[in-house]
Amino acid sequence: MTEPSNSALYTALAYHRACTSHDVEQAMRHIAPGIVCRAPAGAVIGADAFLAFMGPFSQLLIRSELIAAFGDTQTAVLFYNTETVSVKNAAAAEYVTVNDNLIVEMTIIFDQAPFDAALDQRS
Amino acid sequence: MTEPSNSALYTALAYHRACTSHDVEQAMRHIAPGIVCRAPAGAVIGADAFLAFMGPFSQLLIRSELIAAFGDTQTAVLFYNTETVSVKNAAAAEYVTVNDNLIVEMTIIFDQAPFDAALDQRS
Repeated sequence: MTEPSNSALYTALAYHRACTSHDVEQAMRHIAPGIVCRAPAGAVIGADAFLAFMGPFSQLLIRSELIAAFGDTQTAVLFYNTETVSVKNAAAAEYVTVNDNLIVEMTIIFDQAPFDAALDQRS
Repeated sequence: MTEPSNSALYTALAYHRACTSHDVEQAMRHIAPGIVCRAPAGAVIGADAFLAFMGPFSQLLIRSELIAAFGDTQTAVLFYNTETVSVKNAAAAEYVTVNDNLIVEMTIIFDQAPFDAALDQRS
């Protein structure tokens, strides 16, 4: 994709690429220190908490396929399929707000149920 | 919004508006007979099965707030918050493919875990 580098979509895609390539350090370069992230398990506030949330997921990821990516100057939406160690095929979506090339807000949606089921099987 | 009426986003928004206004009949006018819908509980194939899946959800819905809507000629993404009888605040996203003003494919993502928890509390 050839998005202008000051667009929200450019930042969202750069973050997503790094995250799905297990390059957590590079992914964090696109995250604002005061990020507010809404995830199925609850709100994650600040870059340190976000790293603790996103880092393990990134490591579990086997494969990711981007299905759709749209955005404007301030916001972007990504839609993708993931394969993780525990769950073969799970769709996920992210809605991000970007300020000065940093993601300041992120809402992540995925179906937690299959992940819960995988954890139940282990216990 | 003033999307061209032949765009995927126009169809996606028209469907979404009807669905979230409990107007199931109107919502179904935007659904192709052979729709393939991927939802957390599995694939839903054909308009009859889709109606059986979507109808009850539409009736449970108390409130819905559209957060983001993007699209091109063939595909669109909607991101929204829902309040249902059982779950106070749940984010959801839809990715649709549109052909001849009808939704032929839909992937819905929402976190099934709080809905499962609400059902567990009832039983």
